[in-house]
Amino acid sequence: MTKKHAFYAQSGGVTAVINASACAVIETARRYPDKIGKVYAGHNGILGALREELIDTSYESDETIGALLRTPGGAFGSCRYKLKSFEESEAEYRRLIEVFQAHNIGYFFYNGGNDSMDTAWKVSQLSEKMGYPITCIGVPKTIDNDLAVTDNCPGFGSAAKYLAVSIKEASHDIASMCDTSTKVFVMEVMGRHAGWLAAATGLAARQDGDPPHIIIFPELPLDRQKFLNKVDETVNNEGYCVIVASEGAKYDDGSFISASTTVIDSFGHQQLGGVAPALCNMIKQELGYKYHYAVPDYLQRSARHIASRVDVEQAYAVGKAAVELAVTGHNAVMPAIIRESDLPYRWAIKEVPLAKVANFERKMPLDFISEDGFNITPTCRGYLEPLIEGEEYPAYLNGLPRFARLRKVFVEKQLNTPFEI
Amino acid sequence: MTKKHAFYAQSGGVTAVINASACAVIETARRYPDKIGKVYAGHNGILGALREELIDTSYESDETIGALLRTPGGAFGSCRYKLKSFEESEAEYRRLIEVFQAHNIGYFFYNGGNDSMDTAWKVSQLSEKMGYPITCIGVPKTIDNDLAVTDNCPGFGSAAKYLAVSIKEASHDIASMCDTSTKVFVMEVMGRHAGWLAAATGLAARQDGDPPHIIIFPELPLDRQKFLNKVDETVNNEGYCVIVASEGAKYDDGSFISASTTVIDSFGHQQLGGVAPALCNMIKQELGYKYHYAVPDYLQRSARHIASRVDVEQAYAVGKAAVELAVTGHNAVMPAIIRESDLPYRWAIKEVPLAKVANFERKMPLDFISEDGFNITPTCRGYLEPLIEGEEYPAYLNGLPRFARLRKVFVEKQLNTPFEI
Repeated sequence: MTKKHAFYAQSGGVTAVINASACAVIETARRYPDKIGKVYAGHNGILGALREELIDTSYESDETIGALLRTPGGAFGSCRYKLKSFEESEAEYRRLIEVFQAHNIGYFFYNGGNDSMDTAWKVSQLSEKMGYPITCIGVPKTIDNDLAVTDNCPGFGSAAKYLAVSIKEASHDIASMCDTSTKVFVMEVMGRHAGWLAAATGLAARQDGDPPHIIIFPELPLDRQKFLNKVDETVNNEGYCVIVASEGAKYDDGSFISASTTVIDSFGHQQLGGVAPALCNMIKQELGYKYHYAVPDYLQRSARHIASRVDVEQAYAVGKAAVELAVTGHNAVMPAIIRESDLPYRWAIKEVPLAKVANFERKMPLDFISEDGFNITPTCRGYLEPLIEGEEYPAYLNGLPRFARLRKVFVEKQLNTPFEI
Repeated sequence: MTKKHAFYAQSGGVTAVINASACAVIETARRYPDKIGKVYAGHNGILGALREELIDTSYESDETIGALLRTPGGAFGSCRYKLKSFEESEAEYRRLIEVFQAHNIGYFFYNGGNDSMDTAWKVSQLSEKMGYPITCIGVPKTIDNDLAVTDNCPGFGSAAKYLAVSIKEASHDIASMCDTSTKVFVMEVMGRHAGWLAAATGLAARQDGDPPHIIIFPELPLDRQKFLNKVDETVNNEGYCVIVASEGAKYDDGSFISASTTVIDSFGHQQLGGVAPALCNMIKQELGYKYHYAVPDYLQRSARHIASRVDVEQAYAVGKAAVELAVTGHNAVMPAIIRESDLPYRWAIKEVPLAKVANFERKMPLDFISEDGFNITPTCRGYLEPLIEGEEYPAYLNGLPRFARLRKVFVEKQLNTPFEI
């Protein structure tokens, strides 16, 4: 029986280190030439399998694959395409199996978050039922840090480091100017449901009075007056106030802060304003302080130039472990990060069944948030600090980081039927 | 005659490397104990002199002063306080001289941009006229890169590097997602009048079709339709479009792009929208593309974690040269950076009279902008590239950069009269 090829796909929002996982999957697969044939990557994730757009990574040199370790974004493209139950998405599942079978694919490595772990699990079950069993291994990833069981998720640590570094630096700036200029600075961070990234900025504060002075978590509805009082008190005590707000933060009436303002152009067209302008508007109106705000947006999840060394190592480790699990007969599992100790920080990889991970969302513990709701607790600090530890800089050329450029050679299609997404 | 003390003040918007200049001024002054007494730094810049709030830097250890090399923001505080002509600002000039005289200050090092060079020049002239001559040396600084004579300005290179790195990384992100998600990404950069920082992002493009695809310079009024056509064409050709826009960019009717939208809260209060939301709104309305935008704001000028090594070296060099010029009898001058060659990049410091620098604004040459107005030319690249070369990373502790914490001991006041600003 000829050995099977592997299919690898990136899924959901990309991160600064998802390519480190890709690097690990491909490099590790190359070490088992007797077990795994080629590694085909899905062009734009699982859509690549559905559309039969498979990138043959065997055409990429060892150097190029190695360079993925230090390249942000998703080298093969990604998508947010959720397969539902077999009944609802039967055509997609059948198509996946059909494509896998046509290309002699026996391994499916799916690099993503919750939804992807669910898909990997479903495919493992359904492929068996449909007579073409595929070894399905999930490779964890998400800046949202909300996969169950795993102590933390690859991608999160680097975004956390970037945001904590950024708020520390920006705070030095505003502290310099606040006497006669800007007194309030707001930075908006990603996190619609969970305040993990917002919490990470709290690491920048080392002593009482250090910024960020106020963190607004999506878990805690914001009391406008309490917030304004805190801003005013901080400006009076420290001379300035630095605020970090999650994009998903809400007021205590349940409405999204980002929806409280609209951006209107000269033709009257409207879009939702963001959290930062909304808070700044309110502060200006109620307290009169001059403000500035920053919206890093994609910068926070693509900042490979200041990635966390721990994050890079873990992103690589889960990719490597995924392949090792596959070639040693495991199926429907995900390599999870297990924290063995905080100080010194020690972690290991342990396989967990996809069934235990899929569709569970890990929430941030409420004892990570201080009593007044605006800061992080020492417990939270103890959890977060190791995840941003260490630097793993890319190589630079002419002042800019050198990223991988792939050839991206496509596998010849075997099927005649296109697939309508 | 007792040797004189020195007064050092930071002025205008701070940068990632203005403290490197401060470090150089203080460290170099410490090497001439026979010529210079103490270095007093103005608390919040020149306001510190007017208010007689002088920080005695002799209380700071060599280690702390050394750590300024890698600390962003303005360690002593800064302000935008412009002294006008002697007639208009007579009280301020008299007060400055009075404070300098009371504290035996004979050297004035003013670290700022155009307005500061003008102030330093005026003080050199007026102090002489008023019978208490002070050696006044300007120390160049500005992310706007618009001081005359000097080839470039300390602070600019690091902000340029940060923005070019950021756009390169964010572009990798959007390129991954564009098939089914975000197709347009806009990053707003500083630069009300000059497109130097916007131009720097053009360095991220190495081949045809590389992002950023469109740069909007404040020097070139934007033709809406031409812009929209270019966006559409780019999305069709490349799959996505990355745009960089200066905060000061205008439409071809002369209006600021940032003023074309207003942000309105639920109470009807209005603020100006920014350039990024304005352009995104327009693109959404006219072309229907999903967008994201980033507004780095203060992050771009405080990003010491990714400062340009050339910029750090030059910021230090001008501070050092300023003191050396002072102790060798020069006055009313500014150490300027002179470019000796592009490849290899060679530069030197040369003194220039403040009269030649003060109040002149260096504009970006129009041959730096491509014919279609949306990109940079090879000439521009040749100018910019050396300025972002090299990395000079801070030291890290627990995942975050270690910045200087100063004691900030104030000099005892000698004057009884407070000064109303």
